[in-house]
Amino acid sequence: MGEFELIERYFKRQQPKTDRSHTGIDLGIGDDCALLSVGGDQQLAISVDTLVAGVHFPKNAPAEAIGMRALCVSLSDLAAMGARPLGFTLAITLPESNEVWLAAFSKGLFEVADRYQCSLFGGDTTHGALSISVQVHGVLPRGQALLRSGAKVGDLICVSGDLGDGAAALAMIQQSVPEAQQNRLDETTKSYLDARFYQPQPRFDLAMHLSGLASAAIDISDGLLADLGHICRASALGAELNIDRLPVSPASRAMSKMLAELESETGSSVCERWALTGGDDYQLCFTIGESTLRELSARLEKDTLVLPISVIGKTVSTPGIRCYKQGEPYSYNEQGYQHF
Amino acid sequence: MGEFELIERYFKRQQPKTDRSHTGIDLGIGDDCALLSVGGDQQLAISVDTLVAGVHFPKNAPAEAIGMRALCVSLSDLAAMGARPLGFTLAITLPESNEVWLAAFSKGLFEVADRYQCSLFGGDTTHGALSISVQVHGVLPRGQALLRSGAKVGDLICVSGDLGDGAAALAMIQQSVPEAQQNRLDETTKSYLDARFYQPQPRFDLAMHLSGLASAAIDISDGLLADLGHICRASALGAELNIDRLPVSPASRAMSKMLAELESETGSSVCERWALTGGDDYQLCFTIGESTLRELSARLEKDTLVLPISVIGKTVSTPGIRCYKQGEPYSYNEQGYQHF
Repeated sequence: MGEFELIERYFKRQQPKTDRSHTGIDLGIGDDCALLSVGGDQQLAISVDTLVAGVHFPKNAPAEAIGMRALCVSLSDLAAMGARPLGFTLAITLPESNEVWLAAFSKGLFEVADRYQCSLFGGDTTHGALSISVQVHGVLPRGQALLRSGAKVGDLICVSGDLGDGAAALAMIQQSVPEAQQNRLDETTKSYLDARFYQPQPRFDLAMHLSGLASAAIDISDGLLADLGHICRASALGAELNIDRLPVSPASRAMSKMLAELESETGSSVCERWALTGGDDYQLCFTIGESTLRELSARLEKDTLVLPISVIGKTVSTPGIRCYKQGEPYSYNEQGYQHF
Repeated sequence: MGEFELIERYFKRQQPKTDRSHTGIDLGIGDDCALLSVGGDQQLAISVDTLVAGVHFPKNAPAEAIGMRALCVSLSDLAAMGARPLGFTLAITLPESNEVWLAAFSKGLFEVADRYQCSLFGGDTTHGALSISVQVHGVLPRGQALLRSGAKVGDLICVSGDLGDGAAALAMIQQSVPEAQQNRLDETTKSYLDARFYQPQPRFDLAMHLSGLASAAIDISDGLLADLGHICRASALGAELNIDRLPVSPASRAMSKMLAELESETGSSVCERWALTGGDDYQLCFTIGESTLRELSARLEKDTLVLPISVIGKTVSTPGIRCYKQGEPYSYNEQGYQHF
C-alpha cells in the first residue's frame, strides 16, 4: 500500500459531519495545501512536511543544510498554491540536546526563513529519533489558489527549470557513485547539486505570475509522473508527454553518466528515469492554454525572470499518462517515490 | 538543557526581521497557541504537539487509544486559549503500513474529531519510528484569547478537576506498579485512569466561561509547578500555593498507595508529587480576581457544568513559586517533566 492509498483509505474518506460551509475549511486533503477562511477576503494556505533522518536526508547530513531543506520543501507547497509565505511551526524530535547541532540547524532554518520572509511562530520539541515536521502558513486572495483540479483538455503541460536534479544530487550525497569516482566532477557541479538538494528553491518567482493564467499547478516532489498524475486525477483527464522535451541540467547528465558506467545502463536512460520519477526537484508543473502561455512568457520577460519554462506535453481526455519518444509510444512504468 | 531553554536559546531569540504588524502573526512562540490574523474580526489559534512512541505513550499501546490521545492533547491547547476547534493536520511517521493498526488508529482519531467538531484537513505520511504530530487550528473573537501573561498580583490561582491523574495513569500503564498488585484495583478505577491518560478531556466546557473573566490560563501538560511557572514568568509575578488544597482523585490515591508500598514512601507524598509535577493532566490552571470568581461560579452553576474548581493559592509580586503546607513554608524542588 503506497502513501496515497494509505491516506485515501484511512484518513481521507472520513469527512467531517458538520456542514463544511460553516467550518472555515475551504479545501481539505488532496492538494498542495489546505485552504482555510477565518473572515476577510483572504485565504490561509497550510501545508505540513516531515523529514525523517535516514529517509529524507542522510543521517550524517550537515545540520545547517537540514535546517534549510526542511523549510524549503514545505515552502514549495505554498508556491505551488500561489500563496505568499506568512509563518511556520516546527515540530522537531531530537535524539539528544546537542548544542553544536542545534546552533547550525537553527542558523540554516532562519536563513531560509529570512530569505522568504516567513517567521517561526510556534512548535514542539520532543525526544526520539531525529525527525522534523515543518508546517507552513501562507495567504492568498480568496479564490486565486492554483489548484490541481483546474486543467482542461488541450492545455499544454509545462515545467519550470530542470528535472532530475534532486535524484542526481541524492546519488551524489548517498554515494551511489563512489566518492573516488565523484572526484572527477568539477566543484561547480558538486556545489550545484548540493544546493539543489539542500536548498531547493520554492518557485514563488514563477507562481506569482501563474495566478489567473495557469489552469492547474503542483510542485514536483514525488517525481514528474506521480505529480502530473495528481493533476490528471484531480482534473479528470489524461496526459501525453514528449520524453525528448524533458529539461535536464548538465550536472544531472554528468552524474547519470557516472552511475550508468556502474550499472551498465546508458547515461541518457538514467537521466530520463531521474527526470520522470526521481522526485525532490521542487520545480512547478503546470497546465495552461496555448494562447495564455504567450501571455505568461511576456509577463516573465517583463519581470526579467531567468527561469526556463519547458512545454513537455499536453492534456487529453483519455485518463492516464502516455509517453512518446521521437514520435513513438514509449512505455514507462515506474511511478515515482513510494514511502512504503 | 531542558526543552524550554532549548527553545529559548535556538528558536525563540531569532525574531522576524519584518515589521510584525504587517505579517498577520499576532502572537508567536510562548503561549499555548500562536495567534494569526488573516482579515476579519477573528483570530486563528494554532498549536502543534508531537507524541513519540516509547516517550509519550508505551510502544505497545492500543492504536485506537493513541489516535484519541494524539488529538485530545493538542485540543487541550486550544481550550487553554479559549478558542473553538476548527480543524487539524496530522503528520504521522510509521514504521510499517499495518492495516489493522491504521484502521484502529484512525477510528480513535476520528471519534475525538467528531466529538469536538474538528476536521482533518491535511497532513503528511512518512516512514520511520512511530511518531505523531497533530497541529490544531481554532478560532476566537479578536482580542479574547486567554493568555498566560495577564495575571495580576492578588489574583486567586485555580485549577479544574483533579491533579495527578495523568501520572497515576502512567504508573498503571507503564506497570511501575506490577500487574499482580494492580489486580487489587477495581475495574472502575482502572478504566477511569486509562481514560484520563488516553482521552484527556480538553476543557472547552470551562474555557468558554473563562473568556473575559480569567486574567490568565494554561493547560497542565508538564505539571502544575512547571505550567504555573509559565504564567508567573509571562505575567512577571510569583505564586504562593497551598499544598493542602490540591485536588486529588480517589483513583490517584489508590495508585499512589500501591506505589508507596514499593518505594517505602507515604501514599500522600506520592500523590502530592504527582499533583505538583506529574503532568499529563490537561486540566486548566487559571488566575482570576476574587470577586470575579464568584461571577464565574454563578455562570458555571447556571450552565450546570459539573466540574470542580479548586482555589489552590494566590499570585504575589515576588517571583517564583512558594509552597505552604498547614500554614508552614514547604520546600518542593522537582520542576515537572523534562524532555532532555
